[in-house]
Amino acid sequence: MSASLGELAVRYGCELRGDPDVQILAAATLEAAGAGNICFVASAQYRDQLRATKASAVILDRKLAGECSVAALISSNPHATFARIATELHPEPREAPGVDSTAWVAADAQVDASAHIGPFASIGSGVRIGARCSIGPHCVLGAGAVLADDVTLAARVVLGRAVQLGARVIVQPGAVIGGDGFGYARDATGWVKVPQLGTVLVAEDVEIGANTTIDRGALGDTVIEAGVKLDNQIQVGHNVRIGAHTAIAACTGISGSTTIGKRCMIGGGTGIAGHITLGDDIVITGFGMITRSLDKPGLYSSVIPVEEARSWRRIVARLKRIDSMATRLTRVERAAGVQNTQEDEEHG
Amino acid sequence: MSASLGELAVRYGCELRGDPDVQILAAATLEAAGAGNICFVASAQYRDQLRATKASAVILDRKLAGECSVAALISSNPHATFARIATELHPEPREAPGVDSTAWVAADAQVDASAHIGPFASIGSGVRIGARCSIGPHCVLGAGAVLADDVTLAARVVLGRAVQLGARVIVQPGAVIGGDGFGYARDATGWVKVPQLGTVLVAEDVEIGANTTIDRGALGDTVIEAGVKLDNQIQVGHNVRIGAHTAIAACTGISGSTTIGKRCMIGGGTGIAGHITLGDDIVITGFGMITRSLDKPGLYSSVIPVEEARSWRRIVARLKRIDSMATRLTRVERAAGVQNTQEDEEHG
Amino acid sequence: MSASLGELAVRYGCELRGDPDVQILAAATLEAAGAGNICFVASAQYRDQLRATKASAVILDRKLAGECSVAALISSNPHATFARIATELHPEPREAPGVDSTAWVAADAQVDASAHIGPFASIGSGVRIGARCSIGPHCVLGAGAVLADDVTLAARVVLGRAVQLGARVIVQPGAVIGGDGFGYARDATGWVKVPQLGTVLVAEDVEIGANTTIDRGALGDTVIEAGVKLDNQIQVGHNVRIGAHTAIAACTGISGSTTIGKRCMIGGGTGIAGHITLGDDIVITGFGMITRSLDKPGLYSSVIPVEEARSWRRIVARLKRIDSMATRLTRVERAAGVQNTQEDEEHG
Repeated sequence: MSASLGELAVRYGCELRGDPDVQILAAATLEAAGAGNICFVASAQYRDQLRATKASAVILDRKLAGECSVAALISSNPHATFARIATELHPEPREAPGVDSTAWVAADAQVDASAHIGPFASIGSGVRIGARCSIGPHCVLGAGAVLADDVTLAARVVLGRAVQLGARVIVQPGAVIGGDGFGYARDATGWVKVPQLGTVLVAEDVEIGANTTIDRGALGDTVIEAGVKLDNQIQVGHNVRIGAHTAIAACTGISGSTTIGKRCMIGGGTGIAGHITLGDDIVITGFGMITRSLDKPGLYSSVIPVEEARSWRRIVARLKRIDSMATRLTRVERAAGVQNTQEDEEHG
Repeated sequence: MSASLGELAVRYGCELRGDPDVQILAAATLEAAGAGNICFVASAQYRDQLRATKASAVILDRKLAGECSVAALISSNPHATFARIATELHPEPREAPGVDSTAWVAADAQVDASAHIGPFASIGSGVRIGARCSIGPHCVLGAGAVLADDVTLAARVVLGRAVQLGARVIVQPGAVIGGDGFGYARDATGWVKVPQLGTVLVAEDVEIGANTTIDRGALGDTVIEAGVKLDNQIQVGHNVRIGAHTAIAACTGISGSTTIGKRCMIGGGTGIAGHITLGDDIVITGFGMITRSLDKPGLYSSVIPVEEARSWRRIVARLKRIDSMATRLTRVERAAGVQNTQEDEEHG
Repeated sequence: MSASLGELAVRYGCELRGDPDVQILAAATLEAAGAGNICFVASAQYRDQLRATKASAVILDRKLAGECSVAALISSNPHATFARIATELHPEPREAPGVDSTAWVAADAQVDASAHIGPFASIGSGVRIGARCSIGPHCVLGAGAVLADDVTLAARVVLGRAVQLGARVIVQPGAVIGGDGFGYARDATGWVKVPQLGTVLVAEDVEIGANTTIDRGALGDTVIEAGVKLDNQIQVGHNVRIGAHTAIAACTGISGSTTIGKRCMIGGGTGIAGHITLGDDIVITGFGMITRSLDKPGLYSSVIPVEEARSWRRIVARLKRIDSMATRLTRVERAAGVQNTQEDEEHG
């Protein structure tokens, strides 16, 4: 696809500085761009690349406009405007409507005529697939799964029994939505499996990453609200609820029956205990460990950056004896006649 | 399915308080339950929900029976009794025996006539599949794999060459059992692959979660003993042995050649180093880091819960200088004439 | 396969001590070995097993040769020599050239006549597959993917659009190479997807583990250089570059736009932040958390091994108050007339 700068300015509500007739063919980075390319810059730290770029146009905010020597689209949110323009310039190839001859579709499944079903897809009994859905190769849709309109399953996605996906949901390859949760009762013989009777309800505009797993509810359902973005290799336990527009980075694990609020941002590699509640607008830096409920919006962390191993070994050895250090400190305070007025020591 | 309370009491060895003719149709939570539902309560912390429930019956222990205003089944282990009753009320739909017409089965594979082989399953040379096994869509069974009776592979499970699964094993979608272990020798040219010649032996009553990976042994086998429960996205390295009835929560990684004892419980996100041994009845809280062998049964932890980021930054900065703090403490003790009698300081 | 000790000594450049006509049939461990087996020993810590072994021959270095009572192949790198000999003795079964009748191959795909395409493989438009490639069952190759010669995709591997794999690349089951990266712009409506326009370029001799995910670049490509070894369940974000011969253990997550140098070794469960650079020859112990660039070669760590939970709770409570401890220490130093000469305190 291509578009003129003038068209883009009108369509995306930008102020244009430069020639409206310049044709834009493709998105690119500031460094790699050449004629026909459009870029964006969202931070003054890229000022040098901005000055040097050979792009035909750059999307930026008013403050950086003065440093741009090529045509500019001025936007209050350059990253979002770039995302929309790049989507227009580089449309996903659309698969043709229809069911591939190699796919397996249960006799009572309802597939909209405008949907695409790829090679070797397996569509179970009672499944309903909405308009313009694209079901990639090797997807497995369990009995009774329901897909609203415009859902995209990239390839090799598994949906368990009765899983529901809202409009425009995108699922990357290898995700498993609706496997059994990890539920067992212990008795003298070992572990007794607790049947996992719920399902997974995914609202509209959710994206789910590659090889991410979302377990079906035990009793009641696991719920992913609208606009949630889950990166790759995330684990979502049974009966979790994730609030609207929350974004979670890769390799995060969420234990069962936990509720996460709206608009949270959770860094990669984070672990979240079960049966707790995180409020709205909570932000966790990567590798956080969350063992109790949090309700106050804000930024939380427990990451400890690496040290050279020799130094780190000494630090850990000291940390393991920190309780003794505190006792010694109290004793020497007494000997030196210093009163410990720190309230926290009272809990020591 | 449905059953009368009287039948359930007899079948599961419970004392019944209430009308034996009440029909039970489905399991539910205390809050959501209505007529025809059965629930359980295993802890006094749910006393309020118990009093308010509209269920037809509740499974509970003798101590809570007095607080139950509806019919009760009294059990010494309400959770396990609930698991068994819910399994009876909600039987997994059984697939019909036989091989789907789209499946690929090697000429010399032996498939029991009572087994089900789903769409697009790929059954390699020499595979043996026992009675009443259910092989879901898109499973790939490598050459020589052996499945005992009543094994369920949910969908899209990969079994490598010669992997063996015991009776009643359940594998969730996306699991890979018997991929190559991570074995290389370093030389001047880079890394030389060490062939992974062993396989994976999985005993009876094991359950393996979605997208979990269990590597084949290098020399000798990787072994999962009876009754082990592995959650989703667990990584088990080559030549690991996991003892009977051990349960491991999601996102845990176990490095190669490590042995884990029986009846251990390992929290999610835990990392376990290679070539170590954990004894029986070890319990690890979530996100534990285990770098050495442990033999004493008990509860171990290394989790650090998140703090507000501003406070956490100060804590980390101090932690990185804890060695210096300890030196300063010793010096001030000397100046103040306080003798450090703490034995641990002698290793400092 | 089998070979005489004399043949092996010549072929792999070893000094032979013992009868050159002894036939070697298989690799084994020192403990399990019997007649016809060959083993290796690379460390004096296995001296006892070496003395007791019933193997026909052992590969070892000159220093340990005196402790070997059976035939020996003396090598300066016994592990690498063992890897090569074991590979010769236990060749991977080769699939026959040709396309399985159940596979789906786009009309314009180019598949070398010597390549094998397994059951239910799905080969997209414009794909090119080189000589002697082996594409296992259920692999999905997106449009325009290019495989050099001798590539092995074990089973159920997904390659996204235009992904390129170099010669001799091996991919274990369940890996997803070329899913969309996690890229969104935030605006008032939630998150706007940023199209992921790059691909993944994998150089020769790379191995990629089971269920590992490597995202396609956003603008520009994700790059895995020659000889890199990635274990299972690793997540590689968009636009990451991993330098030649770097080895990364399981469950590690690498955030987007990070560059890792050559010959690094990264322990399992490590987390690496985005937009940073690790130099060459960096070694990270398992469960490391890397939040800033590192350029000095060496060994880095941030792991905290588990403690008994009761002790650990006290340690964490003290750690959370370490800032207060430091303040108290400064005060008592002043009271005792001790000057803090530690430079680090100046940043306190």
